[in-house]
Amino acid sequence: MQESLSPDLPRPFGITWDAADELLARLAWSRIAEPGDHQAYGRVDGVGPVAALAEVLAGSGPARWRVRLPDVDPRRDLEILRRLGGRAVLPGSPEWPSGLDDLGPERPFCLWVRGPLRLRETTKVSAAVVGCRASTHYGDHVAGELGAGCADRGISVVSGAAYGIDGAAHRGALAVGGPTVAVLACGVDRAYPRGHEDLVARIAVEGAVVSEVPPGSAPTRWRFLERNRLIAAMSTVTVVVEAAHRSGSLNTARRGMSIGRTIAAVPGAVTSSASTGCNQLIRDGAVCVTDAAEVAELVAPMGECLAERPEGRPAAYDGLNPAELRVLDALPMGHGAPVGSLAKVCGLSAPEVLAGLGRLDLAGLARRDGAGWRRAHRL
Amino acid sequence: MQESLSPDLPRPFGITWDAADELLARLAWSRIAEPGDHQAYGRVDGVGPVAALAEVLAGSGPARWRVRLPDVDPRRDLEILRRLGGRAVLPGSPEWPSGLDDLGPERPFCLWVRGPLRLRETTKVSAAVVGCRASTHYGDHVAGELGAGCADRGISVVSGAAYGIDGAAHRGALAVGGPTVAVLACGVDRAYPRGHEDLVARIAVEGAVVSEVPPGSAPTRWRFLERNRLIAAMSTVTVVVEAAHRSGSLNTARRGMSIGRTIAAVPGAVTSSASTGCNQLIRDGAVCVTDAAEVAELVAPMGECLAERPEGRPAAYDGLNPAELRVLDALPMGHGAPVGSLAKVCGLSAPEVLAGLGRLDLAGLARRDGAGWRRAHRL
Repeated sequence: MQESLSPDLPRPFGITWDAADELLARLAWSRIAEPGDHQAYGRVDGVGPVAALAEVLAGSGPARWRVRLPDVDPRRDLEILRRLGGRAVLPGSPEWPSGLDDLGPERPFCLWVRGPLRLRETTKVSAAVVGCRASTHYGDHVAGELGAGCADRGISVVSGAAYGIDGAAHRGALAVGGPTVAVLACGVDRAYPRGHEDLVARIAVEGAVVSEVPPGSAPTRWRFLERNRLIAAMSTVTVVVEAAHRSGSLNTARRGMSIGRTIAAVPGAVTSSASTGCNQLIRDGAVCVTDAAEVAELVAPMGECLAERPEGRPAAYDGLNPAELRVLDALPMGHGAPVGSLAKVCGLSAPEVLAGLGRLDLAGLARRDGAGWRRAHRL
Repeated sequence: MQESLSPDLPRPFGITWDAADELLARLAWSRIAEPGDHQAYGRVDGVGPVAALAEVLAGSGPARWRVRLPDVDPRRDLEILRRLGGRAVLPGSPEWPSGLDDLGPERPFCLWVRGPLRLRETTKVSAAVVGCRASTHYGDHVAGELGAGCADRGISVVSGAAYGIDGAAHRGALAVGGPTVAVLACGVDRAYPRGHEDLVARIAVEGAVVSEVPPGSAPTRWRFLERNRLIAAMSTVTVVVEAAHRSGSLNTARRGMSIGRTIAAVPGAVTSSASTGCNQLIRDGAVCVTDAAEVAELVAPMGECLAERPEGRPAAYDGLNPAELRVLDALPMGHGAPVGSLAKVCGLSAPEVLAGLGRLDLAGLARRDGAGWRRAHRL
């Protein structure tokens, strides 16, 4: 499309794409600048992606941007993505996840997306379920349960497709046919980690696979750290399931916190190093969550979906008043005792004991035995 | 001591003790009225123990008090206690634990005490370490560690001598030769539970065994519930280590909460029913504690004994700035790469890459390889 290239723009590096097209310019920026490059975000937000790109093409801006220019070809990247059935999503477009706008100056240039789920709608009611790669059976189990329980309630499960907690959370959501979004630190055409090739492929077919870096990009430590801000921003709440003291998922929690997201953590044994980070998060003020219903409580507007409190089987003596409880305590297991001796044992008057016995009799806890009363054998 | 009995007091039941003696009157009340009898506390607080007792001896007051009168003999109870080396402690006396006064109208009439530790001093810096009887190995382990860790820091460990968590907490304190107080729901002359006969005996020799009910009293469900308020009131903080949904230790926590004590709980696996109550307490606002240092932080005045945050071994790349981290990410593991290609990979200018390489070289993370740079094998 050389002909549509604005005539006043320089054409270094023999570029064959239209640097005046906003879509292509934004995609180009996602290759020129690393995620988290505030200077680049500032220029693009300030003068727009096309003008900012023109500046770089004209030789201004830091050298770190210019060194990448020869490899920039957003039309080719887009073609790679389209062959995979993917698409590019820009800020302001109908599919753009509105949560990303909360990142302010850290908002990505664009998203590279695969999968049938529409991001804005999907992430509207969502929970990031994240954690360490070196998870325990406990963590995997809980992540799977949370993934399934959230997805089953229509809460999209956003995670990073990593080994351990992330993978278990995605799988839990897929198992119930629920919505899940994998946010990668590499291009969406790559499967990372390798062992999750099938998982990522399945999410690309049933959910959504998202990245801010263009096709072919490698996952680097830096990109993982910046990727975490997308996971946090694309979710209503971030739930850390298991995290050792230095887990990257704590970084996700911090990124979420910094933009005002609710942070939750699953408690774990204080003797398990894989739970150290979670227990510390809770100490630092994160919400302690123990099941998907409690996560749902954080995601849904107040009062709309309250988690039920766990209730054990009520004991036979639940609901007894203090006097009745004392009469029950005083009742012998063997032969019946007369009301007078019961009164003395429990420190109540005879009429009070009789009233208590009546109630206990009705509750099946006391029974007459000769001239006295004993405990019913139910207890 | 018939001769000292006030001549205007009636002498029903042929009592042989001095009902005008405040000590004996208070001890008598501890047998006449059950723990938690607000009406009795009200009379004793209102007109004093002697006058309140005189009213009962004269036939007034509720029948539940009068039915017990024939069995009341505080001089005999005191004698039983003294034979065991014990003592009675009254409100206002030098040994009275000042925390009990926070119970207000629920303050006990007296305490029956065995053991060398002086209660007021001992409970001044103290933590209740409580939990369920049906504890897990995890809970026992943590309770033992907390008991030892608190006692080692001079924090008295107050508990209920029950099976499970309570016993483990006491044993932890005893193991380090630290202060521990067992508060019983039965008379201090009885060993309950039977299996803890040796434990209670040892606490009576090295710590303190306390009860508000007189010698010979049986442990009833009601007395357990009321006993819990003493554990909470005699401690600066109540720590629940393991508690199922309906554990009595949650009652201790509630009693503590109602008089403004700090409540803490040890988190546990959400899949462990023995931790359900603790995780729920944390959800409800209890402090999440993972070790004795964190308990100490709650007991000690602010800033006096801050718990250290757990710190893992720092990774080699800790402290690198974003540019250095990106250079590190870009370094090949095998043959060295030239600065120009590194600059392109990590999106930095050549001088920035060189600066980063210098720092990485110093940190032992990068090394020269031919004309280029590669990762040092340390990682």
